[in-house]
Amino acid sequence: MTRKNTMKASDIFGTEVPIIQSPMAGVQDHQLAVAVSRGGGLGSIPCAMLDTTRIEKELAAFRAQAVGPVNVNFFCHQAPIADEQRENRWRDTLQPYFKEYSIDAIPPAAERKPFDLDAADVIESFQPEIVSFHFGLPSAELLARVKGWGASVMSTATTIEEACWLEAHGADIIIAQGYEAGGHRGMFLSSDLTTQAGTLALLPQVVRSVSVPVVAAGGIADSQGVMAALSMGAIAVQMGTAYLLCDEALTSTVHRAALKSENSVHTAITNIFSGRPARSIVNRVIREIGPISDLAPQFPLAATAISALRNAAEQGESGDFSPLWSGQNTSGCAEVSASQLTRELANRD
Amino acid sequence: MTRKNTMKASDIFGTEVPIIQSPMAGVQDHQLAVAVSRGGGLGSIPCAMLDTTRIEKELAAFRAQAVGPVNVNFFCHQAPIADEQRENRWRDTLQPYFKEYSIDAIPPAAERKPFDLDAADVIESFQPEIVSFHFGLPSAELLARVKGWGASVMSTATTIEEACWLEAHGADIIIAQGYEAGGHRGMFLSSDLTTQAGTLALLPQVVRSVSVPVVAAGGIADSQGVMAALSMGAIAVQMGTAYLLCDEALTSTVHRAALKSENSVHTAITNIFSGRPARSIVNRVIREIGPISDLAPQFPLAATAISALRNAAEQGESGDFSPLWSGQNTSGCAEVSASQLTRELANRD
Repeated sequence: MTRKNTMKASDIFGTEVPIIQSPMAGVQDHQLAVAVSRGGGLGSIPCAMLDTTRIEKELAAFRAQAVGPVNVNFFCHQAPIADEQRENRWRDTLQPYFKEYSIDAIPPAAERKPFDLDAADVIESFQPEIVSFHFGLPSAELLARVKGWGASVMSTATTIEEACWLEAHGADIIIAQGYEAGGHRGMFLSSDLTTQAGTLALLPQVVRSVSVPVVAAGGIADSQGVMAALSMGAIAVQMGTAYLLCDEALTSTVHRAALKSENSVHTAITNIFSGRPARSIVNRVIREIGPISDLAPQFPLAATAISALRNAAEQGESGDFSPLWSGQNTSGCAEVSASQLTRELANRD
Repeated sequence: MTRKNTMKASDIFGTEVPIIQSPMAGVQDHQLAVAVSRGGGLGSIPCAMLDTTRIEKELAAFRAQAVGPVNVNFFCHQAPIADEQRENRWRDTLQPYFKEYSIDAIPPAAERKPFDLDAADVIESFQPEIVSFHFGLPSAELLARVKGWGASVMSTATTIEEACWLEAHGADIIIAQGYEAGGHRGMFLSSDLTTQAGTLALLPQVVRSVSVPVVAAGGIADSQGVMAALSMGAIAVQMGTAYLLCDEALTSTVHRAALKSENSVHTAITNIFSGRPARSIVNRVIREIGPISDLAPQFPLAATAISALRNAAEQGESGDFSPLWSGQNTSGCAEVSASQLTRELANRD
């Protein structure tokens, strides 16, 4: 405990300030990571929806434009088994919407592949300082390879049990992701949503349960929140929602509009966009068939059918079918450079 | 904002330390409140399940044994409309358990009456410094009467909308009750559980939305948590779970055992014990017919049938049917005097 309490984010991450920008697949690329890095924080590149060519380009761009460390993030879910019957039931559920938007054929959605050898091959030459995973950890072989480069491995725990599991399986840093957090829950040992605790309850219990450094995530939106989390034993704070309106984020027009609207006070954990529970601002499709549906196919297969609707609706500037990822506290969202926001969050301006 | 930021708990509550003991109907009487008061905090007397004779006795005992201020707490729900069909469906659901415990007749359960004129008549002579309400506020007439004595009125908000409503309707102090909190959710403008936010997200947003002082509740279990909440703008912290193992609490044997067991890491918001959502440690009846059942009668009528099972099971030292109220952080529960715990939570020891 003494060791942990005397550690600083600068020692662990090599950053000036204890702020980690959450990797947010689909709404950002290296530009956001570079801006956060220039602000003194840890920039993250989400690779879950990128092929190896794109991963290489993103990392090369980060290294060319930033001097700080990088966090390269992957999903490590089990690849799903296709279940035609379930897929068909799901498409039947969505059929009235397909009719509404005159959608006859459903194109394949962006793939979400778990971390694999090909990805490891690509990132090795960039020697990322931090490699982080969502939904547990990859195989022992892959993990050993990543650690062999000298990278620190970080993963997300949503319960005390998951934190202990991650420590026992080799995680160097654990993110305690509270109920408030936006986007996908990192949960991997249970799918029971009642196990999910708020950050204020989860963080101190995880800090007490493991000996590795703990990062706080979920519901933190300003420098007071950052200070509060650090005072409860977090080594750093990971924030995503606050960055979604930043100049360098690729957040879509409908997503930005939702974040700025009064609707943003009401989010829900839903599985209808991907098959796994994730927090989004409540919109039409969540209200009408969610937030949780037993019919949604296994992650990430549920994304395919709804993406067709999303694309059609967004062409008409409607976010009715879009995953409007957001945490429960949008009060920190600011239309500024992510460099400036990072410094403000760390009380450096 | 300036005014609010310079206020202290001592100014608002007349207490030495910024700790409020949550009123917890069914698990405490004046003894816990007196001990907390002696520790420098605000002791609370839950009156929701007491008749006027008992309320008078409790207040007289507090005044005789403590010198500090008192918080007298009431529910202010709408009295339910009996619905025989719904009651019968609920009893049918529980029938296998009645059979298991050989229960033929269901006795009436402890009543939960909303605050009324009779209660106001009884407490007036004690001039309570704080009168607090759960589930909104009583009628304008009753509220005016309470405020006429010079009492400060406190009520619970679980959303920004509820906080603004309470301020507009005359609350002097607002408790921001985060998702982590044990026992009954104070929610009263919506019954949609997805509106419920974690303390770390809710607290700063409520502080920003109202001009009255805000108390933090939910997930706070130690002095670091107390300091963190105060640093985010709370005037004080209300804590319940941490006091449940205290010497002066009337927590039952099965409830104490559950709080001390590993099961206490898993709580859920359930409506099966009373008809309203409340957080309890997950036990057999929650697993088997909950946590949320559409069949449960309107609050507080659901309590009747399950109380018969609870009493039978507790005779065999089983908590399978007991409401094991608890927040998501039991790490602060200590088998000590509530006076000592209060001072420790406030970092005064």
